[in-house]
Amino acid sequence: MRLKFLWPGKTRSPEIKGLQDFYAARIGALASLEIVETREARGIDERHAGRIKELEARGLEKHLEDVYIICLLDEGKTMTSREFSSFLRGRAADAGKPPAFVVGGFLGLADRIVERADLRLSLSPMTFSHELCRVILLEQAYRALTIIRGRHYAK
Amino acid sequence: MRLKFLWPGKTRSPEIKGLQDFYAARIGALASLEIVETREARGIDERHAGRIKELEARGLEKHLEDVYIICLLDEGKTMTSREFSSFLRGRAADAGKPPAFVVGGFLGLADRIVERADLRLSLSPMTFSHELCRVILLEQAYRALTIIRGRHYAK
Repeated sequence: MRLKFLWPGKTRSPEIKGLQDFYAARIGALASLEIVETREARGIDERHAGRIKELEARGLEKHLEDVYIICLLDEGKTMTSREFSSFLRGRAADAGKPPAFVVGGFLGLADRIVERADLRLSLSPMTFSHELCRVILLEQAYRALTIIRGRHYAK
Repeated sequence: MRLKFLWPGKTRSPEIKGLQDFYAARIGALASLEIVETREARGIDERHAGRIKELEARGLEKHLEDVYIICLLDEGKTMTSREFSSFLRGRAADAGKPPAFVVGGFLGLADRIVERADLRLSLSPMTFSHELCRVILLEQAYRALTIIRGRHYAK
């Protein structure tokens, strides 16, 4: 199985970066994993949200060809962990495009990225910080792979 | 506002412990915060889930008098971050019992703890690792306080 994860900019929190690496290593042992940290809009005042999201959209778009685009949104479709693993298993069985998970920056995703999504996925109705989202998503992907492979979830 | 958090055992992952301390400091600046790491069942084989949960229940029970008990469960009530902040604001306005959030150990909570809950809260229909739950819950409590106080969420 091939899994791709995209988000603008490097993870700044050293603790979250540590967890990101932790889960990435576990996923990497069970699947082919690619994490792409795309161009981040920097030095632009937060009031110019449209410009920031537009710039970040351009970075993300470079990596959205020939993938099944899954955008993370609070108001997307919620799933249990088991449903999420079934979904990933289904994607793997389909010889088509591999899944690419897209997590927005601290202001979220531009509308035109969301409109291209094949699936809008919600990790929770709650809003999590964009860096925490990265880790929660990786943890769920790892959990899904352990369910698919019948492996023990390494705590 | 007084907030209490209970869970069995210390947080083992150094990264998650770092994030726990990060959010605890931010919550502590806006509210009175108490985190109680209760007795953890150790050295018992995972197959004896009932015994583990029973032992951990005894540790938790010592701290459940005169509090409004909120047990975290995947299948509990989901809320948006804004609904969660309204809920906390309501609890603070009520001169009654302060909220105590109870997060289970790696095997979850004993039934008799769940049965005592005034509220069963779900962070997501997805199952997160019990240590990750601690951090997500603290992040949501911090986010709720910034909404209540009209503060900027410090990323």
